[in-house]
Amino acid sequence: MIADLIDYLMAQSTDDDSAVLAPPYSTTNLPGFCVELGREAPLRLAAGARLGSFPMAYQTYGTLNAARTNAILVCHALTGDQFAAEPHPITGKPGWWAQIIGPGRPLDTDKYFIICSNVLGGCMGTVGPRETDPGTGAPYALQFPVITIGDMVRAQKLLIDHLGIERLFCVIGGSMGAMQALEWAARYPDRVFCAMPIAGAARHTAQNIAFHEVGRQAILADPDWRGGNYYDLPRRPVRGLAVARMAAHVTYLSEPALHRKFGRELQDRGDVSYGFDADFQVESYLRYQGSTFVNRFDANSYLYITRAMDYFDLAAEHGDGVLAKAFTATPVRFSLISFTSDWLFPTPESRRIVHALNAVAANVSFVEIETDAGHDAFLLEEPGFFRALNGMLSGAAEQFGLR
Amino acid sequence: MIADLIDYLMAQSTDDDSAVLAPPYSTTNLPGFCVELGREAPLRLAAGARLGSFPMAYQTYGTLNAARTNAILVCHALTGDQFAAEPHPITGKPGWWAQIIGPGRPLDTDKYFIICSNVLGGCMGTVGPRETDPGTGAPYALQFPVITIGDMVRAQKLLIDHLGIERLFCVIGGSMGAMQALEWAARYPDRVFCAMPIAGAARHTAQNIAFHEVGRQAILADPDWRGGNYYDLPRRPVRGLAVARMAAHVTYLSEPALHRKFGRELQDRGDVSYGFDADFQVESYLRYQGSTFVNRFDANSYLYITRAMDYFDLAAEHGDGVLAKAFTATPVRFSLISFTSDWLFPTPESRRIVHALNAVAANVSFVEIETDAGHDAFLLEEPGFFRALNGMLSGAAEQFGLR
Repeated sequence: MIADLIDYLMAQSTDDDSAVLAPPYSTTNLPGFCVELGREAPLRLAAGARLGSFPMAYQTYGTLNAARTNAILVCHALTGDQFAAEPHPITGKPGWWAQIIGPGRPLDTDKYFIICSNVLGGCMGTVGPRETDPGTGAPYALQFPVITIGDMVRAQKLLIDHLGIERLFCVIGGSMGAMQALEWAARYPDRVFCAMPIAGAARHTAQNIAFHEVGRQAILADPDWRGGNYYDLPRRPVRGLAVARMAAHVTYLSEPALHRKFGRELQDRGDVSYGFDADFQVESYLRYQGSTFVNRFDANSYLYITRAMDYFDLAAEHGDGVLAKAFTATPVRFSLISFTSDWLFPTPESRRIVHALNAVAANVSFVEIETDAGHDAFLLEEPGFFRALNGMLSGAAEQFGLR
Repeated sequence: MIADLIDYLMAQSTDDDSAVLAPPYSTTNLPGFCVELGREAPLRLAAGARLGSFPMAYQTYGTLNAARTNAILVCHALTGDQFAAEPHPITGKPGWWAQIIGPGRPLDTDKYFIICSNVLGGCMGTVGPRETDPGTGAPYALQFPVITIGDMVRAQKLLIDHLGIERLFCVIGGSMGAMQALEWAARYPDRVFCAMPIAGAARHTAQNIAFHEVGRQAILADPDWRGGNYYDLPRRPVRGLAVARMAAHVTYLSEPALHRKFGRELQDRGDVSYGFDADFQVESYLRYQGSTFVNRFDANSYLYITRAMDYFDLAAEHGDGVLAKAFTATPVRFSLISFTSDWLFPTPESRRIVHALNAVAANVSFVEIETDAGHDAFLLEEPGFFRALNGMLSGAAEQFGLR
């Protein structure tokens, strides 16, 4: 028992500097595109701060047609990034939507021009707490202004302007990506033909705020966090960030999926160890999720982006508290997808949006996909989900006159 | 924003030694009873270790009748203790079942003799990691053997023997208390007239193991934990323990209850702060839960007791993998209660037990209570729950010949 625990602690030890060197990667030599935005006019954020010239990193897949009408903006979730359809430059793993984006796939790169940018506040090249504050020459850390989903979308809009795209064929995303798709539709209805929020919500619920707060407290409790000023120190708050990731990861899965995948199966042993080592497979899995996450993500970004999600309340922001008013006379075509076993962004949250859209006679379709995969279903091979996406996209493309 | 954060961090700071002195309380001068058990024969634990003479702290309410037939053993949950029906000696708050236990209450102290003992591995006077190892004269810390729900129950049985009670009228408890009630029925069927598992399960699910693992990792990630050897140090792992408590607390409540109690209401402010201070009431509430918990609970006990729950699998332990076999020919009368909005120990887990009991033609009744209070409903004023308890207990008392 004690030996197991010591082995485990040794593996986690902060004396193993290879795991905790800061920062774990440089954003100056990432593959893909990076554009300086906000040069002509600074981006004024909801919190009141202004961002002058700032970098935004993005990737594209497929080719923009001559009429510039085939662009799809893919919005990533909390811990996603712009590497949606190619191996991740740090982890080497396939892109998070590699199964969705590509030739012949639902987001068909033979037909569409796919854009995916790292969100404002992120840590893969777009400005965020780990990037350099031009005013001081040092990383922003907590001097970075708190941002909102609206701010993310207004920054994305500068990118779309920069790319010379008058109107996006589609804005699509899951989870926090769905929040951005909804925000695009509410804020720039004339710049979006169709919005596809998947596993989303028009506001963050009290339970979701609570789970985010647990993650933030785990980071703040890590002495290596040091008030956010860890970028030039040998240690990063990897333990707190790993706990935050583990806590969040449980919420991305359903109990039936956890039961099906792991049940009470033991990890590489015939009987329990009567100790605190990872006896159960589900424990090993969670520890692995926590330990790999810290190599590709920044703890301060986790604080900022979870906060942006918590603040999201489309009705308050665009409808004086009434969700339908956020979409009055909207020309946008909406297609929503939810998953039966998603308890983090459950179907009633999508249905609430559908009801609001119905109230203003918007063009809306909605499909609930039967699956036990939980919130993470939008990242997985789900045949029903793919069929729904295909149908929704090809219907919209036909309406939009895309061949 | 930064000022808010600094204020918060100052309040949490480990330099404020008043909050982190170890240990926060002494178990040598707690009110109530404490008995030395295992003196004649050591308690042999599932993990193989033996506990010789060890303390068990308990409380009683009401009077044992002359025939010694009116005893009810109340089993507490993960973070509960023996102070079920009186102000807590550390926090001063009412006992965790004060509304259930007392004259004229469902567990009527005019009629029944109520016993509630601190579980093995606990931190309120019964032997556990914070108590002194007689072999070394120092606290056990992680030298304390890993324990199981079965071990807890076998220790309780020594207490019941000590009290001269041949047969308990009832063993009752919620959550981990329900696990103990089931274990009593399976292990000592002739010593229990009726078992009342509330909001319970016959095994810990993968999701529940996962949530526990997050809490344990939060404690292990706290540098003040120091491999469990913090008892003689000025700092205890209060930050890790607080995060563990916050993560767990979210799972005790339902989303509807969180929405009803907090929604997206702000804490003492008209607008969001655009910072990491507790803008939302639900955040303040969680932080409060975390910070008060650490004053009355021991981090190592949290590790041991969560582990005992993870290991619980009644079918594996008593039925060769078949739950019904754990109850073959049982004389025990079972009454189960579950709550509609409890997603941690949901109704299907209780129903699974009912099906197993039906398969062996046991005497079983089962009520599912409609409430939005989540898993914590068993600790709250729930009229339907109280009515069900009253009915079940008075029916059993009549059968048992208790007046």
